[in-house]
Amino acid sequence: MTNGQGGAVFLLTDYGDQDEFAGVTRAVVLRQAPRATLVDLTHAIPPFDVRAGALTLSRSVAHLGPGVVIAVVDPGVGSDRRAVALTVSGDSGPRHLVGPDNGLLCWAADVLGGVTAAVVLTPPTPTPPTPTGTGGPRVSPSRGRGSFDGRDLFAPVAARLWLGASLLDVGLPVDPGSLVRLAPPRREVSAGTIETEVLWVDRFGNVQLAAGAEDAVEAGLGEVVAIGIGGTGTEGSGTGGRTRVGRRVGWFGALGRDEVGLLVDANGQLALVCHRRPAATVLGVRAGEMIRLGSTGS
Amino acid sequence: MTNGQGGAVFLLTDYGDQDEFAGVTRAVVLRQAPRATLVDLTHAIPPFDVRAGALTLSRSVAHLGPGVVIAVVDPGVGSDRRAVALTVSGDSGPRHLVGPDNGLLCWAADVLGGVTAAVVLTPPTPTPPTPTGTGGPRVSPSRGRGSFDGRDLFAPVAARLWLGASLLDVGLPVDPGSLVRLAPPRREVSAGTIETEVLWVDRFGNVQLAAGAEDAVEAGLGEVVAIGIGGTGTEGSGTGGRTRVGRRVGWFGALGRDEVGLLVDANGQLALVCHRRPAATVLGVRAGEMIRLGSTGS
Amino acid sequence: MTNGQGGAVFLLTDYGDQDEFAGVTRAVVLRQAPRATLVDLTHAIPPFDVRAGALTLSRSVAHLGPGVVIAVVDPGVGSDRRAVALTVSGDSGPRHLVGPDNGLLCWAADVLGGVTAAVVLTPPTPTPPTPTGTGGPRVSPSRGRGSFDGRDLFAPVAARLWLGASLLDVGLPVDPGSLVRLAPPRREVSAGTIETEVLWVDRFGNVQLAAGAEDAVEAGLGEVVAIGIGGTGTEGSGTGGRTRVGRRVGWFGALGRDEVGLLVDANGQLALVCHRRPAATVLGVRAGEMIRLGSTGS
Repeated sequence: MTNGQGGAVFLLTDYGDQDEFAGVTRAVVLRQAPRATLVDLTHAIPPFDVRAGALTLSRSVAHLGPGVVIAVVDPGVGSDRRAVALTVSGDSGPRHLVGPDNGLLCWAADVLGGVTAAVVLTPPTPTPPTPTGTGGPRVSPSRGRGSFDGRDLFAPVAARLWLGASLLDVGLPVDPGSLVRLAPPRREVSAGTIETEVLWVDRFGNVQLAAGAEDAVEAGLGEVVAIGIGGTGTEGSGTGGRTRVGRRVGWFGALGRDEVGLLVDANGQLALVCHRRPAATVLGVRAGEMIRLGSTGS
Repeated sequence: MTNGQGGAVFLLTDYGDQDEFAGVTRAVVLRQAPRATLVDLTHAIPPFDVRAGALTLSRSVAHLGPGVVIAVVDPGVGSDRRAVALTVSGDSGPRHLVGPDNGLLCWAADVLGGVTAAVVLTPPTPTPPTPTGTGGPRVSPSRGRGSFDGRDLFAPVAARLWLGASLLDVGLPVDPGSLVRLAPPRREVSAGTIETEVLWVDRFGNVQLAAGAEDAVEAGLGEVVAIGIGGTGTEGSGTGGRTRVGRRVGWFGALGRDEVGLLVDANGQLALVCHRRPAATVLGVRAGEMIRLGSTGS
Repeated sequence: MTNGQGGAVFLLTDYGDQDEFAGVTRAVVLRQAPRATLVDLTHAIPPFDVRAGALTLSRSVAHLGPGVVIAVVDPGVGSDRRAVALTVSGDSGPRHLVGPDNGLLCWAADVLGGVTAAVVLTPPTPTPPTPTGTGGPRVSPSRGRGSFDGRDLFAPVAARLWLGASLLDVGLPVDPGSLVRLAPPRREVSAGTIETEVLWVDRFGNVQLAAGAEDAVEAGLGEVVAIGIGGTGTEGSGTGGRTRVGRRVGWFGALGRDEVGLLVDANGQLALVCHRRPAATVLGVRAGEMIRLGSTGS
C-alpha cells in the first residue's frame, strides 16, 4: 500500500450516464490517486433530488469497506452553500465523506457512527487543464465558478484524503452541529396503525417505507393489512383516498398474481411488493407520499 | 498476486443503475477481496428475464479472462430455489460461476466447457452491518430473508472463490445434472427454410436469431431471403403473418436506406439488420418471436 | 509497474448498457492487460452520433491522466473506413487514442496537443474464442467480419499500447493530415451578435453552445441578451423564429423561476440554463440547431 487511507473511493451522484460528468470525475480521482479502487454506487439519482440521494447513500454505507465517499446531488452548486468533508467514527466502513452541505451526507454519516469532525472545503485555485490546440471546440481555462464541483473540488479532495491527507489539510473546521440536515423520514406508529412516508420506489417497483419491522410489531399489525393511499392525512380523521388489502409475507413468491404484500426488506424496512409486478404501479404510489397501514377487522 | 484464484470478478444482473443494488454488490466483493478487479458485463437485463440474462452471459463468457462470474436475475429470490456455485472445465476463461439455479448460468457454463462440479450455497449467517446511528432512516440488522442475495450471498461467495476457496468451502455438492436448464433456443432447418426464434434485440435494433451461419448453409438460403413474421407457426402450414424481403450482406453499409439485411454477426449467428436504423422496429419483431427465413424464387 | 505505458484505459462508446458490448470490451482489455485500470467515460453516446461522441471526448480529455483512450462510435464498422491509433504530443494526459477514422478522435487529439503519429490498424487474425459446448445457443468462431471492432480490434490494440507496444507494432503509418475531420462547430461573432451552434444538451437540460466566454466579450454582449431560436439563419437577414430574453448570470441559482440565463460553463463555453429546470425544454432547442444571441436595446 502506498497510500495512507486505503480502501476504495465510492461515488454517488445525479450525473447520469449520458454525459462525461461521472467519467471525468472518476478520471480526476485516478489522476491524483492512481492506485485507488473506484466503486460507483450509482450515478442515476434523479436530478437535484437531494433526499433520494441521501436515502440511497444511507442504504449503502453499512455495506461498504474502508475508503472515501464522494456524493454529489447539488442543486446549489455555484452558490454560497458550503462544500464539506466529514470524518465519521465507525471503524470498518468509509472514514470520510465529501460533498455539498445540503443534507446529502447526513444520514449516511449517522449510519457510520456519526460525524466526529467536519471541514468546509477551500475552493481550489482552478488548475488550467492541459493546453488546448486549435481547430475544434475550445476547452477554455477561464471556466465558470464552481459549476462542476465533482470534477474540480470533490474528486481532488477525495483523492487527497484517500492518499492520507487529514481533514485539516483540505479545509477549515466547522462545528458538525452546523451541518445541514434533511427533515427526517415521516412515520407515526399507534395501536393498530402506521402512517409512513414512501421513501423510495426501486427498479422492481417495490415501495420502500419509512416504517421498519419493529414498527409493525409495535403497532400490532396482523397478517392482513389495510393499505390507505392518498386522502388528507392523519389516521381516523383522514378523509378520502383509496384502500387496498395487503398480506404480510416473507418473500415475493408467496403472493398470488393480484395480491399486494407487506414484507421486511433487505434493509429491515417495511416494503409493499407484488410478485413479478411493480407494486408502485399497482398501487399508484410515488416516493414522498404518505401511506396508512392498518389492522383489518380480521 | 495475493490471491489463489486471481483474474477478475465479472457481474451480470437485472439490478439496473437507479438503485444502489449493483454498487453495493460491487462494494461487498471488494470489501472481502480488495485486490479483485471488477468488470460489469451489464446490469440492465430486463427485470426477471432469466432467458435474456442467460443469453447475454453466454454471448460474453468466451471473451472473458480468468476469474469468477456473479450473475443475478432471480425472480425466485427468497424461495426454495437453490443458490449455486459451479466450476467449469475450460482453462482460459472464468473458472467459477455463482448465481441462482434457475437456468441463468447453464448456457455460459456450456460455452466454458461444461460444469465439472456444483455446490448448493450455504446461506450465510447474516452479518450485522455496521451499527447504525439515530435520526435518519434506520438500517436494521433484522433483515428479510434472502431478498438481496447479490449483496448477502453471491458477492461474499464470489469473493471467497476469488481468494482461493474451493467449491466445497462454500456449499454442499450436488449433481451437475440436477441443475435447472432453460428450454433451448428454437430453430428448425429444412431445405430452403429456417424457422428460428428471435433471441435478442440489441441497442442498435439488430435482431439476433437462434440460427447460425451454418444453418444458412444447410438450408441453402440464397442471396435474397423471404422473412416471414407472425402468423401461426410451422413452415408451410403456417398461416397469416407478414413477409419482407431481405438480402444477404457482409456488413451494414451494403444496405440501401429501405433494405433489410441478413448477416452473420460478431458471434457467428444470423441477424436481421438495417443500415443506421433499428431493424427490430422496421420489421416489428421482438425477442421470443419466431421468424421464418425462406429462399425466394430467384 | 509491469507495464511500459501505464496509466488508465479510458472508454467512450455508443454501446449503451443493455447489451454485453461495453462489458466484453472492458473484459478483453483486462484479459490482455490485467493490471490496467479501466475508466468508463460514457457508453451512452447516441447510436451512430459521431459528432456527439467527438464533442464528449473533447470535453473530457483535458482532465484525464496518462493512458490510452478507446473511442467507438462507428456507423461504418465493417466497411473500408480505416481503424486507427494516434499518438498525441501532450505529456500529461493520454498518450494514445484508438478508434475508427471517422472524425471521432480529431478534436480530442487537438486538445491533447495534436497528432504526432498515426497508424492504420492491421485487422487481427480472429482468435477463436474458448471452444464452445453444446445444448445452448452457439458461439461460433466463424464470425462476421468486423462488426464488433470494440471487442475484436480496438480493445486488443489498446491493451498492447498500454503494455508498452509502439504505434508501429499495431499498424502501418499514415499521414496524420489524412485523418478524417468533422466540420468544425459553427459560430459567427460580430458586433452585438453571436450566431452559434447548439453543441450538446446535457442531462440537466443545459444548452451548451459553440461560442465561448471570449466570444461574448468580442461581441460586446450586455447583461440582457435576446436569444433567437429557429428561423432561417443569418443575423439581421434571418426571418421567423422565436425570441426569448436571457440574462447573463454567474450561476444557476441567480435565476428566477421563469428566467433563462446565459453563463460560462465549467468548460469555458457559453451555455443557456435555467434554475432546476431543463433549459433545452424551456427553449425548445436541440443539439445541432443554430441560436442567435444579440444585445438588446437596454
